[in-house]
Amino acid sequence: MTDDNIIRWAIRIEFDGTEYVGWQRQNNGISVQELIEKAASQLIGGRPVSSITAGRTDAGVHAAGLVVHLDFPADVVLNKRQIRDGMGFYLKPHPVVILDAAPVSLDWSARFSAIWRSYRFTILNRPSRPALHTNRVWHVKRPLNAAAMHEGAQYLLGCHDFSSFRAAACQANSPLRTLDVLNVHRENEFIFIETKARSFLHHQVRNMVGSLALVGTGKWEPRKMKCVLNAKNRAAAGPTSPPEGLCFMDVGYLDDPFLAN
Amino acid sequence: MTDDNIIRWAIRIEFDGTEYVGWQRQNNGISVQELIEKAASQLIGGRPVSSITAGRTDAGVHAAGLVVHLDFPADVVLNKRQIRDGMGFYLKPHPVVILDAAPVSLDWSARFSAIWRSYRFTILNRPSRPALHTNRVWHVKRPLNAAAMHEGAQYLLGCHDFSSFRAAACQANSPLRTLDVLNVHRENEFIFIETKARSFLHHQVRNMVGSLALVGTGKWEPRKMKCVLNAKNRAAAGPTSPPEGLCFMDVGYLDDPFLAN
Repeated sequence: MTDDNIIRWAIRIEFDGTEYVGWQRQNNGISVQELIEKAASQLIGGRPVSSITAGRTDAGVHAAGLVVHLDFPADVVLNKRQIRDGMGFYLKPHPVVILDAAPVSLDWSARFSAIWRSYRFTILNRPSRPALHTNRVWHVKRPLNAAAMHEGAQYLLGCHDFSSFRAAACQANSPLRTLDVLNVHRENEFIFIETKARSFLHHQVRNMVGSLALVGTGKWEPRKMKCVLNAKNRAAAGPTSPPEGLCFMDVGYLDDPFLAN
Repeated sequence: MTDDNIIRWAIRIEFDGTEYVGWQRQNNGISVQELIEKAASQLIGGRPVSSITAGRTDAGVHAAGLVVHLDFPADVVLNKRQIRDGMGFYLKPHPVVILDAAPVSLDWSARFSAIWRSYRFTILNRPSRPALHTNRVWHVKRPLNAAAMHEGAQYLLGCHDFSSFRAAACQANSPLRTLDVLNVHRENEFIFIETKARSFLHHQVRNMVGSLALVGTGKWEPRKMKCVLNAKNRAAAGPTSPPEGLCFMDVGYLDDPFLAN
């Protein structure tokens, strides 16, 4: 489609990523992207719809407020409710829903217009496995010191080369990222790790959490996080934490299309 | 078993009630009680173990901290970790876990020694169905006024005849109950209803929530809750809310066996 033939809508979505291969289309299973594009296509009688996401989540990772834009053929007439409820209907019975929808201009991109992304990672820290929070938390039996984890996390704030926390498969041009928030706090048996940055490297959040868990058990002093960062070497950091504790929470735009809605 | 032949343990359990017929054994499906008693029995080589619960939850209702006592043959030697982790093992893959265990005397009962119970009911109040909270919330699309619901809820506090909120099948001798807490508050798209009382009638929480939802939509004024209560007639109240939003949170004892643990 050329630009003249497109109308673009931004949508905000929530999904349970447990059963999917992640956002991006792959040959080895169902992706959230194909579910979203298929539902959008069904809504307009089968004509193709393409999508761009603000964040390419991994398999098993969830989203509470991921923003995506959809390019529809320009001659279809749609409104917010049709997109939200109509796509929600075609997405059944998948645990993927449209929370909101807003028309945007063609120079607005869910990915490139984003000025920050935020994630939450949840650890269930107790001896017993989860029953009510299965697939939503990383279960860590050994007691974790959340205050020490928070202290260690603060060494990662600011603009750094995050090579130590970068997946080998990361496609970003640069390992430089500016981390704005990395807070760790405990609420009863749960430890929440909240983070915010303009953008993240592939596996960066899960790799930071894996290292912070080593601080939490006492294996590493909090200041060890600074050494790990300075090493600029993936081997210096802790293991990648499992995906199920991670949730894409929100994404910010200078022109938030949903606010004007 | 006679008293001489018994040792009694209190356990605190968490479960996802979605797939079960409720706490109590029934012919039409799997009950949490039979899963718990079976796991306890497997732990001691197949000898029978009986249980008494602090709360007989309905089908689809969850528990984050339900207390149960188990009567084991007196000659078995058990410790807290064996019960928690061993029963947790035999309970796999069911979403039922043992959070804690403590030995208690035979004059201590999970049911009769309890001095209060607390429940939380969660409503997801937005147009889109739940994706991340499927089976954990009552999905209400129509906007609800949580402040009005809270105001209406306060008319139910204190000692009253709760016949208007009592299931026909309720086996309690008296419809009199003393309601200590019934708080309603909103957090973004969620409305939480927290309640606490020495004990509740059958379906009392779900019936109170069903009526409060009518206050939330504006169909009823908050003070209508007082009229409904005074009617002492189930037909005067609103419908029973669905079970999936309800979670048994906690139970209190003068001698809390887990504190001394």
